[in-house]
Amino acid sequence: MKKFIVLPPSGTRDFLPQDVKNREWAFGVVKGVFESFGFLPMDTPAFERIETLAGKYGEEEKLIFKILKRGKQSASGETDMALRYDLTVPLARFFARYRNQLPYSFRRYQIGPVWRADRPGKGRFREFYQCDVDVIGSSSLLADAEVILALTKSLSCLGFSGYTVRINSRKALNGILESYGVPSEQMKATLVAFDKIDKIGVEGVVNELSGAGVPEVVIGRIRSNLSKRSEDLRGQISTTATGREGLEEVDEVVSLVKPLLKDGEIEFSPFLVRGLDYYTGPIFEIYLKGAVGAIASGGRYDGLIGMFTGEQIPACGGSLGIDRLLSTIDQIGKQSKREERLSCVFITVWDRALRAETLCIADELRSEGISAEISLNDGKIGDQVRSALKRGARYCLFYGPDEKTRKEVTLKDLSAGKQMSVKRDEIARMLKSFI
Amino acid sequence: MKKFIVLPPSGTRDFLPQDVKNREWAFGVVKGVFESFGFLPMDTPAFERIETLAGKYGEEEKLIFKILKRGKQSASGETDMALRYDLTVPLARFFARYRNQLPYSFRRYQIGPVWRADRPGKGRFREFYQCDVDVIGSSSLLADAEVILALTKSLSCLGFSGYTVRINSRKALNGILESYGVPSEQMKATLVAFDKIDKIGVEGVVNELSGAGVPEVVIGRIRSNLSKRSEDLRGQISTTATGREGLEEVDEVVSLVKPLLKDGEIEFSPFLVRGLDYYTGPIFEIYLKGAVGAIASGGRYDGLIGMFTGEQIPACGGSLGIDRLLSTIDQIGKQSKREERLSCVFITVWDRALRAETLCIADELRSEGISAEISLNDGKIGDQVRSALKRGARYCLFYGPDEKTRKEVTLKDLSAGKQMSVKRDEIARMLKSFI
Repeated sequence: MKKFIVLPPSGTRDFLPQDVKNREWAFGVVKGVFESFGFLPMDTPAFERIETLAGKYGEEEKLIFKILKRGKQSASGETDMALRYDLTVPLARFFARYRNQLPYSFRRYQIGPVWRADRPGKGRFREFYQCDVDVIGSSSLLADAEVILALTKSLSCLGFSGYTVRINSRKALNGILESYGVPSEQMKATLVAFDKIDKIGVEGVVNELSGAGVPEVVIGRIRSNLSKRSEDLRGQISTTATGREGLEEVDEVVSLVKPLLKDGEIEFSPFLVRGLDYYTGPIFEIYLKGAVGAIASGGRYDGLIGMFTGEQIPACGGSLGIDRLLSTIDQIGKQSKREERLSCVFITVWDRALRAETLCIADELRSEGISAEISLNDGKIGDQVRSALKRGARYCLFYGPDEKTRKEVTLKDLSAGKQMSVKRDEIARMLKSFI
Repeated sequence: MKKFIVLPPSGTRDFLPQDVKNREWAFGVVKGVFESFGFLPMDTPAFERIETLAGKYGEEEKLIFKILKRGKQSASGETDMALRYDLTVPLARFFARYRNQLPYSFRRYQIGPVWRADRPGKGRFREFYQCDVDVIGSSSLLADAEVILALTKSLSCLGFSGYTVRINSRKALNGILESYGVPSEQMKATLVAFDKIDKIGVEGVVNELSGAGVPEVVIGRIRSNLSKRSEDLRGQISTTATGREGLEEVDEVVSLVKPLLKDGEIEFSPFLVRGLDYYTGPIFEIYLKGAVGAIASGGRYDGLIGMFTGEQIPACGGSLGIDRLLSTIDQIGKQSKREERLSCVFITVWDRALRAETLCIADELRSEGISAEISLNDGKIGDQVRSALKRGARYCLFYGPDEKTRKEVTLKDLSAGKQMSVKRDEIARMLKSFI
């Protein structure tokens, strides 16, 4: 018999029952926090037209999973659709379509998978869940603050502490590039290099700039700044009007968020870039102590919605990468494990003749919200009890000819080892009093 | 400004906040029922290797969405992966990988989207959710009965009545084909034609058979049977050993399920086929009064798991198409609408200077589980109150310089029109007593 590969595709994961329970628990917590901020849920399809996604992600566009045309056109090798790369661009399309039916400003949350053909690595997947909050239609920096707070509060409620919000502004970045005299055709490459500073260090950035053809004199100015403390760069950034505007943005968001965070939980980070093309204002990343890479990130993107509505509409948002959280912390597992076995009754089957009646007993319990699993093995009762124990059931129920005559069932508490007779029409009530 | 198309791709849908709430409500109900049967959750990625899906769906394989290779290979037009077409084939792969970590038999449920490049139509989508239950590792027909009961119970709990389970067996079908003397090379085409009988009628089926090259004398035998009552075909099916085995299977499942259903809710349907290639034993479809097409379906597939494990393992399962349910019934909407506005407090912002403090008030309420939306518009208070009303908030909270001096806030009940002063540190307690 030919066997197929049983691993999931590279960079994707299967989820065992306990994994799903943990994930659902985390989603529930995050959802609760987002809803407490007044964010409303919405959803879009897993794939979008190629045109919808094209030109929004800069460098990263090559990581989009594309879908082949169907039917006769499949032979052409052409694509017309692609899996969503984030939840933000689809949101922009969504908002443009439904704006008349939505509150304005529109605060939404969305929890769902996105797909990126990134090189798989520790904590980096090709299919992963994002938990997003966005505010469309407000240019108030209060909106940016709310987005950051919804994410940090989610982290706290999930049981994490010791995070740092790094904040910057695209305007501050543009200002500093201008102040260095970076030629406009090399601005993008310079930002890409800045973005890697944590990974490749000062010399790495300098090499990248050199490779991109940034003039030596400009590189000299940048090099001396790369290792400076954030606060010491304020002067440099403030030499341009755009830079000053960026600094004001950063300071305002910090002033709003700070009273709700602990000391050191938010810091200005002047070389923070964020890869995506669509950001225009404040941008941020949230780092968790001991975890690799950012656990959440986002920013303001005042130009994106307009690409779909034809009219400038301000927006900002952020995204929590729940997979990294789940894969690092097993405390969550402990928390939800307790609930899993709750109220599981394993119902043995005496013989073929009693199967239909035994199913009716199962149905009664299920209708009362008790999880009842019926034995599919109608062999020896001893084997069936072993299955019940293996399955982690709390109670085992027996219904044989004797019980039938007495209109009873026998109920065994598997942990205590005790058993008792229970009237046929009292089982659900009795079990509920135990559980 | 160039504008992009704002519609989602053909056959897919966006979900407005209320749509998501309805869907979540339905998923919650179904999940509760599935768990009450002892089914455990699991999950697999949205896409699989092409080889995993190939050769499993017969005729329907052309409807699989394929994903283009990435990077340099993208130009080749070749594909290596495809979006899952159902939740069953990925389950088979999953089971083969994790069988040592799973209970045996393994009862699982899974709720998630699948993708089919079908021609979009009323109630037929290219992205839709399936709610699946399966039992792997049991050849007992009790498992088939449990699958059907889990689905019918889900329908009842969702508020639907008036459904019919149509049941047949692949063995009964093979038996009847044999009894007609259908040549083996035309058996598949004959089944495909049978499957369409509800759509194209007796003459339609006869034409298809003719087109497929089924001998006239065989077509004659079939034609006279196509309009017969199910019970009158038992004799014909029983002329072969396979047919008799099939009938016994059907009768046994019916005898197990019937005590829990109303009269007429399950019926033998000898020309029911189910398109997918992998079915081997009992198969069924569930129809809802007034709805087009089957709302749920499934069957036994004793050969599929073995393709991945290399060892024959019996299995059966079924799938509920929740989208059709949701799109036909708005009763669900009413039910969840009530909950949505619950406990929404709209917090006005007096001026820029008070924003940070007002955010702290919002945080206090949110921490107590109260949904608090802060106004992003720090213009006239009257405008802010109008936003609150539009948003459907129950309460509006004011915090200005007077309130600050008195360490109070003003709370307005928007439906009653009443307002009151509340001590700063009593707001959450007070609101909770109202809600």
